[in-house]
Amino acid sequence: MILPSPASVIDHTLLKPDATADQVRSLCEEAVEYGFASVCIPPVFVPQAADLLYGSEVAVGTVVGFPLGYLPTSVKIFETAEAVARGAAEIDMVIHLGAALAARHAEIEEDIRQVVRAAGAARVKVILECCYLDDVCKRVLTDCVAKAGAAYVKTSTGFGPGGATLADVALLAQVSAGRVGVKAAGGIRDWQGCREFLAAGATRIGTSAGMTIVDQWRREQGI
Amino acid sequence: MILPSPASVIDHTLLKPDATADQVRSLCEEAVEYGFASVCIPPVFVPQAADLLYGSEVAVGTVVGFPLGYLPTSVKIFETAEAVARGAAEIDMVIHLGAALAARHAEIEEDIRQVVRAAGAARVKVILECCYLDDVCKRVLTDCVAKAGAAYVKTSTGFGPGGATLADVALLAQVSAGRVGVKAAGGIRDWQGCREFLAAGATRIGTSAGMTIVDQWRREQGI
Repeated sequence: MILPSPASVIDHTLLKPDATADQVRSLCEEAVEYGFASVCIPPVFVPQAADLLYGSEVAVGTVVGFPLGYLPTSVKIFETAEAVARGAAEIDMVIHLGAALAARHAEIEEDIRQVVRAAGAARVKVILECCYLDDVCKRVLTDCVAKAGAAYVKTSTGFGPGGATLADVALLAQVSAGRVGVKAAGGIRDWQGCREFLAAGATRIGTSAGMTIVDQWRREQGI
Repeated sequence: MILPSPASVIDHTLLKPDATADQVRSLCEEAVEYGFASVCIPPVFVPQAADLLYGSEVAVGTVVGFPLGYLPTSVKIFETAEAVARGAAEIDMVIHLGAALAARHAEIEEDIRQVVRAAGAARVKVILECCYLDDVCKRVLTDCVAKAGAAYVKTSTGFGPGGATLADVALLAQVSAGRVGVKAAGGIRDWQGCREFLAAGATRIGTSAGMTIVDQWRREQGI
């Protein structure tokens, strides 16, 4: 079977705490070379990435309330506005899990809505951190994400005890029913895994192994 | 040997991403009962803890730029000001490790200074996340922390690949030379460990095992 290159759905990601400006530069160069959808980088490096990617088709993405999610909405709004002002076009935010586990869904929906508003034209992806949630909770929260006007629901931060699972991606895709995209992230390391997540309904893949994935896809396609 | 209770130097800590309001309430009640120095809790719960601890001697502590540290200074300032306005008296901030590893020390010192300024009367503890740093770097950064006017230098977030070590605490205590306190955090689980960190020069202990530690101290003292 001929499959299109996965590059255009990959967020080329560098979010480790000791990431340096030099590593961000390399990441941006790789993203242009491979044609990734975006780079996903620490907030402090957004201006640098925006400069490096100016005029390219690679979006600058960053994170808000990351990776623990338990910031007041006022701080998430400020983080988002700063990121967008400094050049971010995609915002991956984390919900407040403590509120989710206490079934305070209206509060979570409002938290997301405020970030979406602060983001303006930038696309917001909402990280549920599924490893902490049961399926009922994932369903309700995916609905909150769609109603709050975000662009994607995302499985995981990559910093929790569990990453993306095929079952979660299928569930989120089913509930979102096309209203929002589904981003799978956390532990996706090769083309085999990437392909399975796409088949399960993911429309975006967050990974630090994007080059490996595309290289493996090329070999499989005989390119 | 008779040793004083460690309770007064313990920051009673709950920073896991799925912490709930109910758990924060219990934590605050325990802190009053045991006489801990502070609670260290997620920013979103600061108003609740400030209400619960009003009139007690337990300080409300929270985190800024936590646990990854790679936020722009503008965001750390906003987070700090919000936390203090909502009732925090202690702020545990994380430095930008990428700048530390690139030897951009003046930038780090200025980042800390701005947070200290935004904190006003609140005490600022600065987390170096020592597991990523060599000893030369730890020395230079401890000096930055002291010069920037913070109250404590702190070893670890508790979310990194390594926590507090006795060698790091001894090093930070030696370099700080009394200019700032030293907070050991990450992996301190019992009175035996706590005692060793205090002997090495720690003046504050961050742990989620504060009750166990004090109970073990009591048994040892025959109280």
